[in-house]
Amino acid sequence: MTNEPSPPSYHMSPDEFRWHGHEVIEWLARYMETVDDRPITATVQPGEIRAMLPDVVPEQPEPFDAILSDLDEIVMPGITHWQSPGWFAYFPANTSPPSILGELVAAGLGVQGMLWSTSPAATEIEEVVADWLVGMLGLPESWKTTGPGGGVIQMSASDSTHTALVVARDRASGEAGKMVVYASAQAHSSVEKGARVAGYGHVRLVPVDDQFAMRADALEEAIEIDIAAGLIPVAVVSAVGTTGTTAVDPVRATGEIARSRGLWHHVDAAYAGTAMVCPEFRHFQDGLELADSYTFNPHKWMFTNFDCSLFYVADRKPLIEALSILPPYLRNEASESGEVIDYRDWHVPLGRRFRALKLWFVLRSYGAEGIRHHVREHVALAAALTDRIESHPQLELVAPTPFGLVSFAHIDGDEATDALAEAINESGWAFVTPSTIDGRRFVRVSIGQTNTTAEHVDRLWELIESASSRSVDQ
Amino acid sequence: MTNEPSPPSYHMSPDEFRWHGHEVIEWLARYMETVDDRPITATVQPGEIRAMLPDVVPEQPEPFDAILSDLDEIVMPGITHWQSPGWFAYFPANTSPPSILGELVAAGLGVQGMLWSTSPAATEIEEVVADWLVGMLGLPESWKTTGPGGGVIQMSASDSTHTALVVARDRASGEAGKMVVYASAQAHSSVEKGARVAGYGHVRLVPVDDQFAMRADALEEAIEIDIAAGLIPVAVVSAVGTTGTTAVDPVRATGEIARSRGLWHHVDAAYAGTAMVCPEFRHFQDGLELADSYTFNPHKWMFTNFDCSLFYVADRKPLIEALSILPPYLRNEASESGEVIDYRDWHVPLGRRFRALKLWFVLRSYGAEGIRHHVREHVALAAALTDRIESHPQLELVAPTPFGLVSFAHIDGDEATDALAEAINESGWAFVTPSTIDGRRFVRVSIGQTNTTAEHVDRLWELIESASSRSVDQ
Repeated sequence: MTNEPSPPSYHMSPDEFRWHGHEVIEWLARYMETVDDRPITATVQPGEIRAMLPDVVPEQPEPFDAILSDLDEIVMPGITHWQSPGWFAYFPANTSPPSILGELVAAGLGVQGMLWSTSPAATEIEEVVADWLVGMLGLPESWKTTGPGGGVIQMSASDSTHTALVVARDRASGEAGKMVVYASAQAHSSVEKGARVAGYGHVRLVPVDDQFAMRADALEEAIEIDIAAGLIPVAVVSAVGTTGTTAVDPVRATGEIARSRGLWHHVDAAYAGTAMVCPEFRHFQDGLELADSYTFNPHKWMFTNFDCSLFYVADRKPLIEALSILPPYLRNEASESGEVIDYRDWHVPLGRRFRALKLWFVLRSYGAEGIRHHVREHVALAAALTDRIESHPQLELVAPTPFGLVSFAHIDGDEATDALAEAINESGWAFVTPSTIDGRRFVRVSIGQTNTTAEHVDRLWELIESASSRSVDQ
Repeated sequence: MTNEPSPPSYHMSPDEFRWHGHEVIEWLARYMETVDDRPITATVQPGEIRAMLPDVVPEQPEPFDAILSDLDEIVMPGITHWQSPGWFAYFPANTSPPSILGELVAAGLGVQGMLWSTSPAATEIEEVVADWLVGMLGLPESWKTTGPGGGVIQMSASDSTHTALVVARDRASGEAGKMVVYASAQAHSSVEKGARVAGYGHVRLVPVDDQFAMRADALEEAIEIDIAAGLIPVAVVSAVGTTGTTAVDPVRATGEIARSRGLWHHVDAAYAGTAMVCPEFRHFQDGLELADSYTFNPHKWMFTNFDCSLFYVADRKPLIEALSILPPYLRNEASESGEVIDYRDWHVPLGRRFRALKLWFVLRSYGAEGIRHHVREHVALAAALTDRIESHPQLELVAPTPFGLVSFAHIDGDEATDALAEAINESGWAFVTPSTIDGRRFVRVSIGQTNTTAEHVDRLWELIESASSRSVDQ
């Protein structure tokens, strides 16, 4: 059988890959050049994209050009352009050319980094970039993989936070149903979701102060009430930059309470962690040496495409104890020597792609200086917009602007605020998120997309001005 | 401030992206052309890659060519070549040119598919490919998103299995510490890990028959013993193709037991699910209509690069109930209409990249026929190798070969078997996994890498033959 001539191959040859690869690079370069001219949000109706596609898989191979052409005709109308410089919604989910090329190389190499031995470079480059970031962001030195702690790339901050809560749960004793996780009333939904997924019985959302930061006294009080009720306080999550308004919880005070009560302290800096490349923001993370774990997402503000969430632990032992399981087909000499990191023991999944590569490309391509420069530019643009809103008679801020997020409302109330957000979004070239805080509607303007410049924020301001006076005229 | 000229940009321009993008495409095409000539496993020592890199992040931007050159000089010596046609280790983790290009486009578009509204195409293309696969693999029709069930792409089968166990846990009542998950003694480590992460108190590994398939009678017995002991049986995981030897658990019998006992039945077909594109293998999945959830990985044998694990549920309601949390900044009209799928509620993470795109590229590029053709070729090559081993005097099979995995040992015992695996791996151009089953060492030869042909299996056979007689001579 094996001596017969090979049957026909359905694989694309390396030469065809060359040809189509160059086409796709051109397609993406043109996309980058034109994304600013495209309406940001997709205008399709539910089911519209689906309806353009057949119900069954094609039986015969289709030429690659037909696929590329459907990319334009079918996919693009359903794309919301997160990479538009007019993107002010949610938080940025930035990509950048070096990141795209890093992802491309990783997809082509197609290695699994589950064990050191299954591709040593995937593990060691990840250790290196995780350690680089400790220095670059002013994180505690002991979090380097060369110390007792270490960093690992996970898919998202949700995964990182869930992992922290699993380790905290396993370290504690008692029934999970009696265990409590604490976070501010402004904490990201991933805390509640992670706690629920990990089987915690209770999530206590602690009241915030007038800046929307968790009140340390209220945290302490909540813990005491729970202990008195026979519950088991296990973990507290503090945020450096909440999703609602980028409020900063008191990291040091939270850490001190956690230490004195034996709670695991996880810090969620998913968005704002990137800002710490600038020393002037580091006072916001004062007290990190009292944290047990920490997460921040280069895939938000550090020009590295999703997925790339860094998860650090101060001590890797309990993490590995909670997550290590060793079947016979994964045993190997390098792992047994204890000289290497096997990142499979640092998160839930076993398989892992070479995500460190794109981050390595980004960090080298920009240098710390380049990232610092762009972060400062975004923050300055947010500060300037904040000033404009403060001096506008129909608008008011609903929260401070410590980083790149500006949170404001129309003084005429929720309806006017919603109308303002709607008018901005209907323009097609700027996109903001309407949200609610303290029962009040507000507009979130997140400045931080890779290509956003002063010009785009000026355009947004014109829209805001014209829409807010229109609202007054009504 | 915003009227000043823009400060210098550290971003790579679209034209520079063009230039470097074409370089990277060439680099990858050359990699594809030469991967067969490279020693498969990295020969570096622990720490060797790290030692070639600086301890601190570069302060200044580096030219892209310096990065590409370090890719050759520093990264490549630490790469184990999973995409080599001589890859017979673990299971394949295939990529293919259309998949790489799909990943490239997804990285460039950089959209988040957490909600339908955040990029409708990302959700609807995912629905379409998930539904296509139901038809293509002969899965129950009710698992289509147009029915009560549905499919979603997760990162890995570990994530899918963990998700299933979380939903099962939440559906049951009682303390998690008293809950039991059942799986065969040959189940993948992800079952034990997922159960532990989800907080289950017990994992029961059920004895297998002489083909290494779970014994339904032993499952029933284990459940009864646990009930008598006051424990709570909650879920059972059956495997279509175990990792050890691709054994197939009795799916129908397991499903019947699960139904009669009120257990959640999750089916793990991570590797072998792809084979179901060929109707002749579908008898192995008989009884799937009795399953509650199912996972298989296109990133193993379906030419789609990691990460791409399909997770299906027969009923999406309990899944969404377990995982849905709705903060104010994610509220939107489309979600509230109930007309759309928001995939964030189908797994632990919130953010998600457009992974469906690469799978869509692959399915269209190969067509069902192309995938069927290559799967049949791999299975035929495994069958031919199985015949050769059976008729070789020094070798014997340790398990049947239902798919592409051949499991065999040297008749002289563990030492000879290990020496055989070592000799193969030391050759540099074939790579197999030595493992253990029933206390006995064996060699796993997994035939299924994208570019593996008869020629490569012939080469492997020559190695096996020469190494096994050498072992006899010693």
